[in-house]
Amino acid sequence: MAPVGFAFMNEFELIARLTQGLPQNDSVVVGAGDDCAVIDLGLPDRWVLFKTDAVVEGIHFDREAPPARVGHKALGRCLSDVAAMAGEPVCALIALGLPPNHNPGYLHELYQGLNALAESFGVAVVGGETTANPERMTVTVSLMGTVLKDRCVRRSGAQVGDSLWVTGELGGSIAGWHLMFEPRLQQARWLADHFPPHAMIDLSDGIAGDLRHLLAASRVGATLLTSAIPISAAARQLAGSRNRGPSPLTAALTDGEDYELLFALPAQQAVALHDAWTRQFPGLRLSCIGKVVAQPGISLMTPEGGRPLTEQGYVHFE
Amino acid sequence: MAPVGFAFMNEFELIARLTQGLPQNDSVVVGAGDDCAVIDLGLPDRWVLFKTDAVVEGIHFDREAPPARVGHKALGRCLSDVAAMAGEPVCALIALGLPPNHNPGYLHELYQGLNALAESFGVAVVGGETTANPERMTVTVSLMGTVLKDRCVRRSGAQVGDSLWVTGELGGSIAGWHLMFEPRLQQARWLADHFPPHAMIDLSDGIAGDLRHLLAASRVGATLLTSAIPISAAARQLAGSRNRGPSPLTAALTDGEDYELLFALPAQQAVALHDAWTRQFPGLRLSCIGKVVAQPGISLMTPEGGRPLTEQGYVHFE
Repeated sequence: MAPVGFAFMNEFELIARLTQGLPQNDSVVVGAGDDCAVIDLGLPDRWVLFKTDAVVEGIHFDREAPPARVGHKALGRCLSDVAAMAGEPVCALIALGLPPNHNPGYLHELYQGLNALAESFGVAVVGGETTANPERMTVTVSLMGTVLKDRCVRRSGAQVGDSLWVTGELGGSIAGWHLMFEPRLQQARWLADHFPPHAMIDLSDGIAGDLRHLLAASRVGATLLTSAIPISAAARQLAGSRNRGPSPLTAALTDGEDYELLFALPAQQAVALHDAWTRQFPGLRLSCIGKVVAQPGISLMTPEGGRPLTEQGYVHFE
Repeated sequence: MAPVGFAFMNEFELIARLTQGLPQNDSVVVGAGDDCAVIDLGLPDRWVLFKTDAVVEGIHFDREAPPARVGHKALGRCLSDVAAMAGEPVCALIALGLPPNHNPGYLHELYQGLNALAESFGVAVVGGETTANPERMTVTVSLMGTVLKDRCVRRSGAQVGDSLWVTGELGGSIAGWHLMFEPRLQQARWLADHFPPHAMIDLSDGIAGDLRHLLAASRVGATLLTSAIPISAAARQLAGSRNRGPSPLTAALTDGEDYELLFALPAQQAVALHDAWTRQFPGLRLSCIGKVVAQPGISLMTPEGGRPLTEQGYVHFE
C-alpha cells in the first residue's frame, strides 16, 4: 500500500514525508521542523515550547552505562532543544518502556540522575507512563517550556554574511560526554538577551547534519574554516586509538551527540560577542567556525584549499 | 543496588515508588497521579494539561491491526485522558520507535488515522521524533491541552453519598473497540458545564483498576450494583465463545481499554442528569452503577448477596 516513491527513505526523508499535511490550528506558531514546537496559548508575552525525545537501550545507551547518567541524558536532550530556542523549561513527563526483567533499583538510580538535572534547572517532573517493551528499555521524555516572544530563536533566520559559532568542543562524545553533557540553557538565554542570534540549533547529529538543517531552513549555505572547528580531546584520542577510523576533524563534524549550540549572528558583532562571552562564561569555549553564504551547501576551507563537505551527520536508519 | 523493599513490585507499586519526591516548582497544580498533569503557566482563566502515553506493537496492537487504527488508538488514549479532566486538547507530538524493516507505507497509513482523529477534535500535530527500536514499533504521543480552572475535574473529589456513573458499555474491547473508540471529550465538557462531577477518570484498565484509583485519590470506597454494570455485546460474545474464560460481568469489570468516562456526582442530581444526558447524547448509554461509601474498597451487590470485588484491573507487568 506504499504510495509510489515511498520506499527506500532514510530517517530525514521519512520525517519530511510524514510531516507533510499535518493537522494545524490557530495555536501553532512553529510546527514540525525546529528544535521545539512553538505554541501560542494566549499568554501576553510568552509562547509555549513543546518537545519529545526518546533514548533506547543499545542505541543511545548501553546496558552498562550508569543508570543515573541515562536519566541525565534522557532529560538533557530535551533541555538542549529548549536551549536552542532560547527558552526556559517548565515541566517534564517520562514514558518508560520496560522489559519484563527490569531492575527496580536501576530505575531508582535512573530517576535520581534525571531528577537531579531537573532540579538544577528548576524543572518539575509531573508524571508519566510505564509500559512493557519486551526486549529493551526506552525512556521517552516530553518537555513543556516557555520562551519570551521577542527572544525566541528559530533555525530559519540565518542571513548571508552572518558569522557561525559553536559552543564547547566537538566529536568523540561516545567516550562519555553523551552521558554527561550540560544543556546550554543559561548560555542560550544570555545570547538571546545580549547578542540575539539570527538562527540557532543544538548539535545532536553533528555539524554535518545540524548545520545542514539550519541552512536549509534559512535557504542559505555556509563556508567553514576547518582550522577553526573546536575538536575535542576525546575526538583526538579516539582517532589516535583507531587504525582506520575517521580523522579528528571528521569526528568533530559528524560524530553527533555534542549537545552544544550552533548559531548565526551578524558578523559585525563578532568581536563584542567574543569578549563578552569570555567574561561571562570563562570555562566554556566559543568558536567562530565560518560564515553564511548565498550558495547552498557547505564548503570547507582547509590548509590544502577548498572542498565541499560531503560527510553526513548521524542518521538513525537508512 | 536496589533499596530494601524495592524488588517484586508490580506496575502500580513501581509507579508509586518512582513518583515519590519528584522535583516540583510553582507551576505545578497537579503532578503525577491524575489523568493529566495540570500546569499553571499564568493564563488568567485556564490551566495547561500535559500527558504522555505509548502504544507498543505486540502489547497494545498486533502487527495485523490496520495501521490507521493504530494511529487512531495512539492519539485517542491521550485524548481520553484530557477528557477525563474536562479539558480541551491543543496539540500533539509523536515519537516513533521503528524496527529497521519498517514499512513507510504502513507509517503513512498510521499517520492518516492519527491525523484524522486529530482533525476531528481540532488538534494540531506539531512534530515529533523517530528513533530505532529494533524489535517492534512503538508510538508515544505527548499531548498539550487546556482546561478552564473552574471546570477542571480531578480524581480526588469523590464524596460519600455520590452516585457513580459510566458512559458506554464495558468489556470485550479486544474484539475491536480498543482500536476504534471515540474519546469522550465532548461529553466530559458538557458534564463539567451542566453537571460538574466531583471526580472523574477514564477507563483504561477497567473498573476494577480505575475505580480503585479514583477511590484511593478520594480516600473513600464504593458499592456497585452488578446488575447495573453496562456489559458490552462484545464481552458477552467473547464469554460465550470461551469455555473457561471470565464471565461477561468479570470481563466488563476487568478487561480494560474501554476508554469510557467514570465519574462521581451528587446523588440528588441523578434524575436530572439522566434526563438531560438522554436528550443531549441519545446514542451513548449512561449508567448509574453504584455509590460512594466511607468504607474503603469496592463491594459488589449481586442477586446472590454482597461480596468484595477482589478482581484487579489490567496490569502491564508484575
